[in-house]
Amino acid sequence: MDEITFAVLGTGGIGRRALEVSQHKETLTPVAACDRRGIALDADGLDVDELLAATEGNIDNEVATDGGAGTAAVDGDGGGNEDGGDGVKQHGEDRGVVASDQARPSEDPIGEIVDRGDRIDAVLLALPNYEHDFIPRTADRFVEGGYSGVLIDVLKRSRVIDMLDDRRAAFEDAGITFVCGAGATPGLLTGAAALAAQSFVEVESVDIWWGVGLKSGYEDNRGTVREDIAHLPEYDIETARDLSADEIERLIDERDGVLEFEDMEHADDVLLERAGVCDAEDVTVGGILDVRDDEKPTTTTVRVTGTTFDGETATNVFQLGDETSMAANVNGPALGYLKAGVRRNRAGEYGVVGPAELMPGF
Amino acid sequence: MDEITFAVLGTGGIGRRALEVSQHKETLTPVAACDRRGIALDADGLDVDELLAATEGNIDNEVATDGGAGTAAVDGDGGGNEDGGDGVKQHGEDRGVVASDQARPSEDPIGEIVDRGDRIDAVLLALPNYEHDFIPRTADRFVEGGYSGVLIDVLKRSRVIDMLDDRRAAFEDAGITFVCGAGATPGLLTGAAALAAQSFVEVESVDIWWGVGLKSGYEDNRGTVREDIAHLPEYDIETARDLSADEIERLIDERDGVLEFEDMEHADDVLLERAGVCDAEDVTVGGILDVRDDEKPTTTTVRVTGTTFDGETATNVFQLGDETSMAANVNGPALGYLKAGVRRNRAGEYGVVGPAELMPGF
Repeated sequence: MDEITFAVLGTGGIGRRALEVSQHKETLTPVAACDRRGIALDADGLDVDELLAATEGNIDNEVATDGGAGTAAVDGDGGGNEDGGDGVKQHGEDRGVVASDQARPSEDPIGEIVDRGDRIDAVLLALPNYEHDFIPRTADRFVEGGYSGVLIDVLKRSRVIDMLDDRRAAFEDAGITFVCGAGATPGLLTGAAALAAQSFVEVESVDIWWGVGLKSGYEDNRGTVREDIAHLPEYDIETARDLSADEIERLIDERDGVLEFEDMEHADDVLLERAGVCDAEDVTVGGILDVRDDEKPTTTTVRVTGTTFDGETATNVFQLGDETSMAANVNGPALGYLKAGVRRNRAGEYGVVGPAELMPGF
Repeated sequence: MDEITFAVLGTGGIGRRALEVSQHKETLTPVAACDRRGIALDADGLDVDELLAATEGNIDNEVATDGGAGTAAVDGDGGGNEDGGDGVKQHGEDRGVVASDQARPSEDPIGEIVDRGDRIDAVLLALPNYEHDFIPRTADRFVEGGYSGVLIDVLKRSRVIDMLDDRRAAFEDAGITFVCGAGATPGLLTGAAALAAQSFVEVESVDIWWGVGLKSGYEDNRGTVREDIAHLPEYDIETARDLSADEIERLIDERDGVLEFEDMEHADDVLLERAGVCDAEDVTVGGILDVRDDEKPTTTTVRVTGTTFDGETATNVFQLGDETSMAANVNGPALGYLKAGVRRNRAGEYGVVGPAELMPGF
């Protein structure tokens, strides 16, 4: 497979770690990274070390509240509010990617990436999604700008898949392959479920149970934590977005830093159904997030129970080592699925696919 | 993905079970099945139920000793010797596939399948490999006959991969995508290792440990057992082939039906290296086979230990439920990889690939 060039939209925790992990992957060259205020471009490959060193202390944690069609703002996945109240770790003059020598301010960073789209094989949308149409609307900009290539996100919400599906014909016409939900979960874990399902002719249930310990990564991943809060029974994506930083801290305090989720609305179900593994209703997702400890509060486990062709019922199990961080489990798979998406795209397969559909024709 | 037509060479345990499992897979239509003496053909799809019912008691367990280029005989993976001394389960007039109403005798069943190659997307080589060039030589016949499509085997031996690699240019010229080692192991388990490796930027070790309980499948899988014996320290592929049925029974008696293997020559190592997961020398394969009990003597487990981008060392684990049979774990993945191979072939990717290379660009 030839060299792959890619861009990262959003330089929060996920965007920056994706750049870092890409350094370990052969054939992947990051040529652009942007946030809502600036952009770094280098067709020969960004100096990732410099970019990370310059931006680690200058994360732009503001939420992109809107921008309307054509002006969608680009945020990191940092979280926080429009007033910048979180002020996480900022200690430089410039916030966000412009702190890097390779970057400059931009009025329209997404537009600049779209304009260079013919030299970019894939675009990783490492964006938050407090408004659940934010990523679909960003995709619209790439369609409108004549981009053809791979778009890939690491989202979790089922309803976003539907919004992307509504755009399937537009993606196909444009020559875009949209890979959705390509992080740790749904990404890695639905991939594992699709693989584990191979022993069976009928899958009865897929149980996904995750543990994340996020003490040292908490500040970097406030956006992810906020999105997780939206999965708590008392909240939804809108009410979670409207929480102030203080309210989030209080909510976490009340729970001693531990948030437990059962029966989450999580795209794993629809993505496994799309891949033909099982019905969406046979998938359950839950987990425990501890923001005050780096040790995982529980072991991330995928259990696939099914019936074999010879009539036996059994459960295949996939478990992640407790020492693997969320960042490790998000970004390795995301880049792997990115490469798989580029292969599909080059073979002329366009539209919307989930990670489990990228597994060998299972 | 469109409909896929496929043929099965060899109607021993693996070939017949592949036909059976294919009934549960969408888009797969078996259009040909043959053994060394006969062939069943139906461009609209074989009646698998009839074929299995007719052949279950009439397995041709003779070993194809040779045939030379152009006349390579086709055997099931039943095992036994040229004198037919095993005589396993035969109770019909006709041995092998010709016991089916859909089949007829053939002087050159492989030639007949090659001649119909333009209507066959993939050919599953469910053949034994006592002579370790038997499958490569069979592949030569497809090249010589102008076949372009997928060839796929479920072999275990590292050295066969090398022999297939020697033919890479010929496969590429012919438009053939050869998928090697696509059964339970290497197939399913190296796929799991490639998936599990995603948390890491450096994989230190892959440990594959399998358990197979084969009491009720023993007669059907004598070929596989004989090939396993070749992995015992005291034997090799030639000495195992030369064992009489009595000698095999004695060998198994001496071990109370339990064969334990450590550090096997197993293609998992070269296939994981080819896929970029780790060095071949970091892969260890072992397992326990019990031919007198259907319960697995040990749980099949893949352990992938590596270092994350953030410097942690951890082990991800994949385990198969003990109730899943070898047949279930061979044939589901084999057909999944067959479909993945057809997708690659249709995209113009030819040559030799292992299962782990068919995983998302990991």
